[in-house]
Amino acid sequence: MGRTHSNAFSQVSHFFDLPVRPVLQAVCARNVGRAEAFAKQWGYRSVVTDWRKLVESPDIDLVDIASPNDTHAEIAIAAAKAGKMVMCEKPLGRNAAEAEAMVAAVEAAGVANSVWYNYRRVPAVALAKEMVDEGRLGKIFHYRAKFLQDWTISSDLPQGGEGLWRLDAAVAGSGVTGDLLAHCIDTAMWLNAGIGEVSAMTETFIKSRKHNLTGKVEPVGIDDASAFLARFENGSLGTFEATRYARGHKALYTLEINGEHASIFWDLHDLHRLQYFDHRDESRTRGWRSVHITDGDHPYMKHWWVPGLQIGYEHTFIHQAADFLAALGEGKSAPPTFREALRTDYVTDAVLQSAADRRWVKVQGAGAAHAS
Amino acid sequence: MGRTHSNAFSQVSHFFDLPVRPVLQAVCARNVGRAEAFAKQWGYRSVVTDWRKLVESPDIDLVDIASPNDTHAEIAIAAAKAGKMVMCEKPLGRNAAEAEAMVAAVEAAGVANSVWYNYRRVPAVALAKEMVDEGRLGKIFHYRAKFLQDWTISSDLPQGGEGLWRLDAAVAGSGVTGDLLAHCIDTAMWLNAGIGEVSAMTETFIKSRKHNLTGKVEPVGIDDASAFLARFENGSLGTFEATRYARGHKALYTLEINGEHASIFWDLHDLHRLQYFDHRDESRTRGWRSVHITDGDHPYMKHWWVPGLQIGYEHTFIHQAADFLAALGEGKSAPPTFREALRTDYVTDAVLQSAADRRWVKVQGAGAAHAS
Amino acid sequence: MGRTHSNAFSQVSHFFDLPVRPVLQAVCARNVGRAEAFAKQWGYRSVVTDWRKLVESPDIDLVDIASPNDTHAEIAIAAAKAGKMVMCEKPLGRNAAEAEAMVAAVEAAGVANSVWYNYRRVPAVALAKEMVDEGRLGKIFHYRAKFLQDWTISSDLPQGGEGLWRLDAAVAGSGVTGDLLAHCIDTAMWLNAGIGEVSAMTETFIKSRKHNLTGKVEPVGIDDASAFLARFENGSLGTFEATRYARGHKALYTLEINGEHASIFWDLHDLHRLQYFDHRDESRTRGWRSVHITDGDHPYMKHWWVPGLQIGYEHTFIHQAADFLAALGEGKSAPPTFREALRTDYVTDAVLQSAADRRWVKVQGAGAAHAS
Amino acid sequence: MGRTHSNAFSQVSHFFDLPVRPVLQAVCARNVGRAEAFAKQWGYRSVVTDWRKLVESPDIDLVDIASPNDTHAEIAIAAAKAGKMVMCEKPLGRNAAEAEAMVAAVEAAGVANSVWYNYRRVPAVALAKEMVDEGRLGKIFHYRAKFLQDWTISSDLPQGGEGLWRLDAAVAGSGVTGDLLAHCIDTAMWLNAGIGEVSAMTETFIKSRKHNLTGKVEPVGIDDASAFLARFENGSLGTFEATRYARGHKALYTLEINGEHASIFWDLHDLHRLQYFDHRDESRTRGWRSVHITDGDHPYMKHWWVPGLQIGYEHTFIHQAADFLAALGEGKSAPPTFREALRTDYVTDAVLQSAADRRWVKVQGAGAAHAS
Repeated sequence: MGRTHSNAFSQVSHFFDLPVRPVLQAVCARNVGRAEAFAKQWGYRSVVTDWRKLVESPDIDLVDIASPNDTHAEIAIAAAKAGKMVMCEKPLGRNAAEAEAMVAAVEAAGVANSVWYNYRRVPAVALAKEMVDEGRLGKIFHYRAKFLQDWTISSDLPQGGEGLWRLDAAVAGSGVTGDLLAHCIDTAMWLNAGIGEVSAMTETFIKSRKHNLTGKVEPVGIDDASAFLARFENGSLGTFEATRYARGHKALYTLEINGEHASIFWDLHDLHRLQYFDHRDESRTRGWRSVHITDGDHPYMKHWWVPGLQIGYEHTFIHQAADFLAALGEGKSAPPTFREALRTDYVTDAVLQSAADRRWVKVQGAGAAHAS
Repeated sequence: MGRTHSNAFSQVSHFFDLPVRPVLQAVCARNVGRAEAFAKQWGYRSVVTDWRKLVESPDIDLVDIASPNDTHAEIAIAAAKAGKMVMCEKPLGRNAAEAEAMVAAVEAAGVANSVWYNYRRVPAVALAKEMVDEGRLGKIFHYRAKFLQDWTISSDLPQGGEGLWRLDAAVAGSGVTGDLLAHCIDTAMWLNAGIGEVSAMTETFIKSRKHNLTGKVEPVGIDDASAFLARFENGSLGTFEATRYARGHKALYTLEINGEHASIFWDLHDLHRLQYFDHRDESRTRGWRSVHITDGDHPYMKHWWVPGLQIGYEHTFIHQAADFLAALGEGKSAPPTFREALRTDYVTDAVLQSAADRRWVKVQGAGAAHAS
Repeated sequence: MGRTHSNAFSQVSHFFDLPVRPVLQAVCARNVGRAEAFAKQWGYRSVVTDWRKLVESPDIDLVDIASPNDTHAEIAIAAAKAGKMVMCEKPLGRNAAEAEAMVAAVEAAGVANSVWYNYRRVPAVALAKEMVDEGRLGKIFHYRAKFLQDWTISSDLPQGGEGLWRLDAAVAGSGVTGDLLAHCIDTAMWLNAGIGEVSAMTETFIKSRKHNLTGKVEPVGIDDASAFLARFENGSLGTFEATRYARGHKALYTLEINGEHASIFWDLHDLHRLQYFDHRDESRTRGWRSVHITDGDHPYMKHWWVPGLQIGYEHTFIHQAADFLAALGEGKSAPPTFREALRTDYVTDAVLQSAADRRWVKVQGAGAAHAS
Repeated sequence: MGRTHSNAFSQVSHFFDLPVRPVLQAVCARNVGRAEAFAKQWGYRSVVTDWRKLVESPDIDLVDIASPNDTHAEIAIAAAKAGKMVMCEKPLGRNAAEAEAMVAAVEAAGVANSVWYNYRRVPAVALAKEMVDEGRLGKIFHYRAKFLQDWTISSDLPQGGEGLWRLDAAVAGSGVTGDLLAHCIDTAMWLNAGIGEVSAMTETFIKSRKHNLTGKVEPVGIDDASAFLARFENGSLGTFEATRYARGHKALYTLEINGEHASIFWDLHDLHRLQYFDHRDESRTRGWRSVHITDGDHPYMKHWWVPGLQIGYEHTFIHQAADFLAALGEGKSAPPTFREALRTDYVTDAVLQSAADRRWVKVQGAGAAHAS
């Protein structure tokens, strides 16, 4: 994630006219050698190995957190207290309790803040948002999202440490629920409505793995797979699923919305396309439209290349950086703020609790779900 | 359904060499004029308006039931008692209690019997079955099925009577659970394993509709949408969903199986294709294979055209008729028998009960699900 | 082809209300045993081994020719002289000279006649025709067609005799030009405009093969691959290609039309879909529409199943039989008549001559092409 | 093109470890205001408005030409004479005569040189190259390429000047032949073999347009569409087509290679996928593989993100910059060199001449084509 964030701040001024031009002032990593190599590669002006130095430094305006989940709360709270703007990788906390403390800190400090739910800034997803907001879909009946991966199927894969902390429950907080479903939930609530209640199941297919830090075979604490049924606050039904055991899928985040008049489908593996069906089209020639999101009138795309030429994954981070810097010019925080991201942590907490208790769980802070 | 069944028995001898050649002996319908027109069009030798006449007739060997769900049990039980072979449209009964009585009747009578879960005979699905049975997928982790339609979105659509009995709970038994999910469940248990327990939600989006038989606006008793989480007896996880409110989908039955080594995906809207990913392929050139199921070594396809030329929906019924007649030659019933189809009714009953009670429900007759 | 034609006449009355009901009166094949088996399977009332018997028989109204190309002219001319209606497999003759004689015969006799260019009756292609005729595409700039197969790549494949006469130039007339490009040309001139002139190249990749009838290795006389540039009479440009050496394609007949306002694409491997792009759609949500041709308002489809359920290859022949029988009721011949099909033979003759002479060749009977 | 090149040199050191680190020393543009704005946005150290200053400047090592085609030769030759390395946008010259002079200049000067045929560096295309070179496809029978756009359909579009010089024959040299087909030809000869001879047709659909520089309606000198048949030196057949009148396609560069054992298809609109069919796969489960080119063992991809996450158009330029800088470390020029790019100009010259003369034209410098 360090690379995607550094790239975002490095590239944003090349493609966007913004009121503020970011400077890559300092990079922090525990290993000084790697920090220095990274700084050299990306042009950071300095290097620290203790994040507290960053937080205290007078020449730092913004602290951007791209470290493992168990560090988010401590760093963000300290940074906010020091009056720094804070951007944080998702999920905000390992759980809603951590996230609540983070929200309190940034709001108390009055600092700009944002969470890197980067998929909102895929141009196709941003277009979907515009279309929903324009009322094109009519009343929404169904929302469906999946995030499928296959990288942990081998039982030889260890857990913990460098590159594998996502398998370590103590560091990550949870497995696919916080890692993958969090993305799905953030987009869903943004595009559709709040989630009122959930019924979930989780599974850990491989029960124990060697831990890289202890060297011992230890129980796996994370969820390998997580699926849930949901009722949204607007009366629509949701189905969600994430797993790292779906052979053949690397990062297949898909979402579909079915409305009274129209439906939308999107897929991260072909992120530059949006599938759109509109029942109001003439019946005889009606069909799902494969919209190639490369034209100047598509969100963000006037900043890139001529029509027909696609952009990729890292551009979503550049767009978020651009929106953050543009919002700064207006004295605002670009969404999702910490407060907005907290709502996703409430849902993931409810999912984990529902799976543990084998019952429907109401999401904290949700309005009444329109259950029949 | 009368046309698809008549077509199956009419066409089967043109394309398959079978020990038995079916004769279209008599057609039964309440309206004599329509029965006669139908008989003329399809070459039936005679017409009756009371199904009891068929059941009693000595020149009838097989009674094929293609009438609404509320007639299945009575006709099938009477036919079995009269010593006729019985084929029945799905679902077997409106509920498991009806279906159990039907199973008892055919087994007591010792007559050949089969239920038209026709999608098992899509060549692509039959190939999927072969591949699973060969162990190509390895341990199964996930099974996903959806059946999405959009034909009841308008609130002006009435319920009940000719062509609309599927919206009438008294006739149909349930809504999409028995109509659409039943297909998904039958295929899932055939391809993967028995379903142990479920957590479901259902929804009726439009609460009342004019009833065609009474002429009055009446409450809608069926489920418009139904989704459930499942744990299979082999430890894999299932997600299922059906609806008639998914704008843009006419009959989008999709299924996907993710195994340790390989995955399979199929889609009724392009039923002549099977998507197949095999992790054992060389890594650099590995990808989802779009298998065009038109070759002579694909199930059933040697009976049809040269490679590259696709078949359609009605062929699945022809295949089932062929398998039924071939099995007869060996003194057997072609699957799914009534007994096998009863298992699907146990699952749909569990789904409806789970949705009503908002809790996980164990499927009748299921072995222990491998819940964590 | 005997099966597709027999199926067409067997099925047409089941699905279409027609003024005439065909009777499968007699089948003709050289081998009496196979003829009898075929007659039994399809319900033909009698069998002959000499086609002249059919032509002379008073109880035959229509002679349908599904035999190899070298028999078309002789049978068709005799049948016409005997006052029979004639339907003939494509291409009409092995060359335009044969086809001209056939046209003269049916026109002199005044008998109904039609050539089985069946792809016109794919519902998606028929819809494309409607759309072009409605002027939706505006001025046409480009037409592109390919027909790709891969069944003759092995040098071990012999030529000639049963099932392999298409590799024998004396029987077939030509290779892919008459077999595959003829389909492309027929559809192109029907959908777009007459072809004015062509520049072609052909290739025979495997120069000699064992001949099944002589038992000797003999030079291959057919073209394995054939491609040509074309100028249509309406000023649009065409590119055409056919081959039996395109690994991975079984019968990939594709066509695309690009007009001022809209474009259309179709593909035989997914024959129940039409791709449609309309520039007049709102720019931001414009995309290629994948139209699933299964609705009642699509050509021919009201005769089949409910929306979402696809038909296959053989249905194109059923549609042609239906159109032929419907036209008979009005005293007409269903297109393409022999005269219309002759135009395709003029183009294939021009293609072969252009390839031989390495120059542009004007198509016989064509109006002036709008070359710049 | 200035942006894509600047981005390439700006980004290359962030993602590749290279022996040389480029410095954005100076930018040249005729309009000083725009040059300064561009320099500021991209971090160029200085600005000039006369390219001769760059060529003479001692602190410039490499001159990169991204200006219209009519400037390529003069700048490149001057830069080479001054001992600068030269990179040049494609096509090399407006015609082969210009390109020959450019080759002579860089070879006489002994300077590193390369032409931005960037599509070679799409990872999917680079993988195709590896596969062909490994002999996986076996003997090649067919090569097919198209480059379809639709941006000049309106007759209101003027020609000439800023952003529209591609419609001005004096500046561009030709229309789609040099602009689009040049890409197709470069890739084809790289992947497959030299092109021996061609038969072409070109068309100018809109014969006159307002000229932006003169303000008058003037004849259009470029080709709007260009298609040709080709015979490659290895005996395979080629079909090529480019147009700016293909409604619905923005930059649809597609290529397909059919070999004895395997085939490959690629499409710029989904540039991160490669379609691959291998006949040696088990017959029953054989199909076109959709290879998602995002894994670490795909060309260039280990430098980017985790599997499943796609890159876009501009990355092809970054890859070419990386290869160029890596080659410098070995004292070489990264392909395609000027000499290699000259071969493409020979083919485009032959295409234009063939279209003008309506005859097959042998490509200059080509070996004997294996025509039958």
